[in-house]
Amino acid sequence: MSHGMNLRYAGLEAGGTKFVCAIGTGPNDIHAQEQFPTRTPEETIRKTIEFFKAQEPFAAMGIATFGPCDLDSGSPTYGHITSTPKSGWENVNILSIFRQAFPIPIGFDTDVNVAAFGEWKWGAGQGLDTAVYLTVGTGIGGGGIVNGRMMRGLIHPEMGHIRVPRVSNDTFAGNCPYHGDCLQGLAAGPAIEARWGKSAPELPRNHPAWKMEARYLALAVNDLVCVLSPQRIILGGGVMHQTHLFPLIRQEVRILLNGYVQSPMILERIDEYIVPPGLGDRSGVLGAIALAKQMAEKAKG
Amino acid sequence: MSHGMNLRYAGLEAGGTKFVCAIGTGPNDIHAQEQFPTRTPEETIRKTIEFFKAQEPFAAMGIATFGPCDLDSGSPTYGHITSTPKSGWENVNILSIFRQAFPIPIGFDTDVNVAAFGEWKWGAGQGLDTAVYLTVGTGIGGGGIVNGRMMRGLIHPEMGHIRVPRVSNDTFAGNCPYHGDCLQGLAAGPAIEARWGKSAPELPRNHPAWKMEARYLALAVNDLVCVLSPQRIILGGGVMHQTHLFPLIRQEVRILLNGYVQSPMILERIDEYIVPPGLGDRSGVLGAIALAKQMAEKAKG
Repeated sequence: MSHGMNLRYAGLEAGGTKFVCAIGTGPNDIHAQEQFPTRTPEETIRKTIEFFKAQEPFAAMGIATFGPCDLDSGSPTYGHITSTPKSGWENVNILSIFRQAFPIPIGFDTDVNVAAFGEWKWGAGQGLDTAVYLTVGTGIGGGGIVNGRMMRGLIHPEMGHIRVPRVSNDTFAGNCPYHGDCLQGLAAGPAIEARWGKSAPELPRNHPAWKMEARYLALAVNDLVCVLSPQRIILGGGVMHQTHLFPLIRQEVRILLNGYVQSPMILERIDEYIVPPGLGDRSGVLGAIALAKQMAEKAKG
Repeated sequence: MSHGMNLRYAGLEAGGTKFVCAIGTGPNDIHAQEQFPTRTPEETIRKTIEFFKAQEPFAAMGIATFGPCDLDSGSPTYGHITSTPKSGWENVNILSIFRQAFPIPIGFDTDVNVAAFGEWKWGAGQGLDTAVYLTVGTGIGGGGIVNGRMMRGLIHPEMGHIRVPRVSNDTFAGNCPYHGDCLQGLAAGPAIEARWGKSAPELPRNHPAWKMEARYLALAVNDLVCVLSPQRIILGGGVMHQTHLFPLIRQEVRILLNGYVQSPMILERIDEYIVPPGLGDRSGVLGAIALAKQMAEKAKG
């Protein structure tokens, strides 16, 4: 086993839609990559393990999982996915399965915290003390970096489940299985499709869906600014591929804050404040590699 | 000048309603305390300086100010109160005035961040990695501790200005001068009084005001849990003197979260999760003393 080969890292973005696996050391040095649709835990995890087994050796692994998940190493359900509405995945002990397959240091956090970490290491969050990554796709989730560390606390952020005021002409009930009309229930991809009968990519740019979507996401950004005051807010995920949303969101955020937060980043340079991911769709899997690297360095002491 | 006298600290809670000044070393060792109503900057700051001058010597000072304020030491308006709606106080360079009067180390942060720091040192936040302090009084503000540090970022948290869905039977327009019906505009003390024609202490316990107030504050707690996931949420300020709000808020928070955040602190021990300040109304001024102490220690190296 060569020393060089051992300094590769395994990154897994275990998302609700797909599992993205990569081996490498950073954004410009990916040795292998593969993805599998998220089906049953058995099938999806088996394929993932097969991919990584074929890539051995590597020094450490980072797992970025959809959640909620248990990050408390003192808890009996540490490393489990917990109360997910995703059928079959509730209470899956994902960390333990990978630990049994790969006896190396394994880092474990939420997909969005790890994406924020990836952006902080190599993307749009570089050099900042605090940054938030919010993904808007099949669900809405957010994570962040505060003073160089991924956000944890009681559990971890679940930013998609904040409550926002309804846009006045919106009669859609909301489709979050836990909360109905929380942010995710009103503004994630499936909510757009359920409300308008067409998916985000099918809706023309001049459709009223976009102004409404921008308003909901601006309400979320407003709340993130008020609660966390991050130095940058990175918006990723499938819905944000509709890049015409960015100027609409920025405009609505300025209307909502109404000059109260007197920072040049909001008053003068909001284009640099609310931004797409620097790593495109790779924030999660590259963040997982960055997390693996950090685990390997910690293990070395 | 005795060594012992020099190891006293000055704490100033520069609030929107009153300036609270204290000299001492901690909650059980306050040598002198005085408070002045917040009138013009000239009058209020002069009285404050006179109080502290009479108490010299002390080793360092902590200032906990109402905001928004500029905490960025590289900014030309560092140490200023910035966009406050409080008449006469906009752009007051409060830090500089105290620095000129007292050539010692001076720590400076928002009243609510410092209150969170006080609670973390000596009150309801002891031993935690993350905790939030939300005050509900003439305004609503929140600060917090993340990994032992006060929350900062682009500026600092302004938690009172999140947007929450209206309670369905609430027709009050909201009275935040910047945002109308943000949380502060709907749920701070002056909003209660404007909506019901009576101040919080005058409203009987069975008045519908309380269920509505609990709902608004529970929406705020819900959002804090989703964005920050703090290990404890401390609710202080004048409105929270109505302690019958606590069980109402806890109940509404559990209804809002609906089992999604699977932590025993929420599912089983929410009485220990949403709590009054351990230091009563002294979180801010004692936090300012704790901040002064930290500044003195930093200055020593």
